[in-house]
Amino acid sequence: MSSEFDLIARFFIRPTPGITLGIGDDCALLTPGPGMQTTISCDMLVSGVHFFADTDPKQLGHKALAVNLSDLAAMGATPLAFTLALSLPSSDETWLKPFSDGLFTLAEKHHCRLIGGDTTQGPLNICITVFGEVPPGEALRRDHAREGDDIWVSGTLGGARAALEFLRGTISLDTAVVGPALSHLQMPVPRVELGMAVRPHAHAAIDLSDGLIGDLSHILNRSTMGATLNIDTLPANVALHDLPHHFQLRCMLAGGDDYELCFTAPVSSRNAIIEAAHQTKIAVSMIGTIEKEPGLRLVNAKGEPQTFSEKSFDHFSAT
Amino acid sequence: MSSEFDLIARFFIRPTPGITLGIGDDCALLTPGPGMQTTISCDMLVSGVHFFADTDPKQLGHKALAVNLSDLAAMGATPLAFTLALSLPSSDETWLKPFSDGLFTLAEKHHCRLIGGDTTQGPLNICITVFGEVPPGEALRRDHAREGDDIWVSGTLGGARAALEFLRGTISLDTAVVGPALSHLQMPVPRVELGMAVRPHAHAAIDLSDGLIGDLSHILNRSTMGATLNIDTLPANVALHDLPHHFQLRCMLAGGDDYELCFTAPVSSRNAIIEAAHQTKIAVSMIGTIEKEPGLRLVNAKGEPQTFSEKSFDHFSAT
Repeated sequence: MSSEFDLIARFFIRPTPGITLGIGDDCALLTPGPGMQTTISCDMLVSGVHFFADTDPKQLGHKALAVNLSDLAAMGATPLAFTLALSLPSSDETWLKPFSDGLFTLAEKHHCRLIGGDTTQGPLNICITVFGEVPPGEALRRDHAREGDDIWVSGTLGGARAALEFLRGTISLDTAVVGPALSHLQMPVPRVELGMAVRPHAHAAIDLSDGLIGDLSHILNRSTMGATLNIDTLPANVALHDLPHHFQLRCMLAGGDDYELCFTAPVSSRNAIIEAAHQTKIAVSMIGTIEKEPGLRLVNAKGEPQTFSEKSFDHFSAT
Repeated sequence: MSSEFDLIARFFIRPTPGITLGIGDDCALLTPGPGMQTTISCDMLVSGVHFFADTDPKQLGHKALAVNLSDLAAMGATPLAFTLALSLPSSDETWLKPFSDGLFTLAEKHHCRLIGGDTTQGPLNICITVFGEVPPGEALRRDHAREGDDIWVSGTLGGARAALEFLRGTISLDTAVVGPALSHLQMPVPRVELGMAVRPHAHAAIDLSDGLIGDLSHILNRSTMGATLNIDTLPANVALHDLPHHFQLRCMLAGGDDYELCFTAPVSSRNAIIEAAHQTKIAVSMIGTIEKEPGLRLVNAKGEPQTFSEKSFDHFSAT
């Protein structure tokens, strides 16, 4: 077996221009841009909880970083760097090679550099902490939604959950949509460029990891606001199109793992939001309105109230 | 069982003055001091690998942060904040309460604030990423040791390993020293104040987690230097005093887990180093010299060469 230091050197040290000091010292050194604020997010992925033990390591390397970059996107931040802590049952090179490839392909796309971390023997666990920067006061915080704001989501919803249910064998999918749905689940695309592009025009944002209802509720609670969503404007992933209406809704409202952005912006920003979507080639949909009245209300296109009771995924809930 | 969000709110959200935005958004926001560099370090502790599964959770909360603060100390950095990712078999409050108490008691001592993290269900795993700051160019890097530097260590060596061997039943210890030795292993004191105090006077530093020989070798390799250590000047922990000489040496040179600082400083800094030790009430010992000739040589007080072959602890080595 290789030593811990060999592992780090072989798979995780890559050239890191612009970082004052990267892997190989007690700490990494980051020199923030003059006057910029540092955004920091941390996610831990556990085998058997967040992914199947036999998940393709290249996809896993991608996803582990993608979910963290998605948090930066939800602040409108520019990615800078990340640390990786990795617990592995054994130093298996046939796993490490594709894992590091998946990780670095995405990292390099966003000029996000690995600056430190830890490797240890133990049950498979991947913990990434990611760093970005935003100009002071410009971060898209959850507590900044205002009455009358439009509610927007990027991309499509429900694809990741449809793929998960397909893998579990609870639904069947048309062969034509299996690929895109699995890609949605296994290789989510963090909406980094969109987050940065809407930052000057939006008020609040969150990324959709637990499901639209649960995640939007965080914005509402922290902003002391309510909202109405028009369920007929939700952008259903193509994998859902032939499935029962109720199942579609469940996947879109509470499916989780979509890693799209949900953000609020004043009506006066509509043109700017659409232009940002056009520039970044990421579709956006206007799905509702922030209101003063607390709570989350669902209506259809005719304005008729709709009910939906399912809670979003919670790692410690008894559901 | 409590939900993930309840867990975070109940045990991990404490007042955090000075942090622009802490737990509860997609990212935390840190506003670095004007012109300061951010130091970042990350450690992952796995149950059954880094600690026994039945370790007192209060001690574990302390140690999980202490090992990270020790990395900041080794850069001479001032602690600012940390993130905590926690994988738990169950949301057991009788474990979480003392764990968070141990963690926050140490954090508050160093004005180091929890600004974000993640909790999930899974095998017990604690991943902390810690943030500090240093003036530009002043960090105590591993690659800055120079020919003729004195080599210093803080505190005493070997106590943690003696305690571990005592717990394993391989040695017996006098009742009078069991307590201090166990405390050395279970509640290591990160040398944060000493690191900051010697920063203007020292060249290179590392904290002793794997063992003196292994850790000092990182400084030598990265500085392209060699060294001679005088083994008769090593500060033996009191727990070692009645044990065989070879066992003492093994604990001091390769024992690991001491979390003392090893640093190099020019001869002209001797008075300043001793003053820094006095100010911070942390003992220091001068144990050797940095030399141009590669390799690490051991001598006794008479200058006679000594041999020692044991490698330091490596999580993936086949030893």
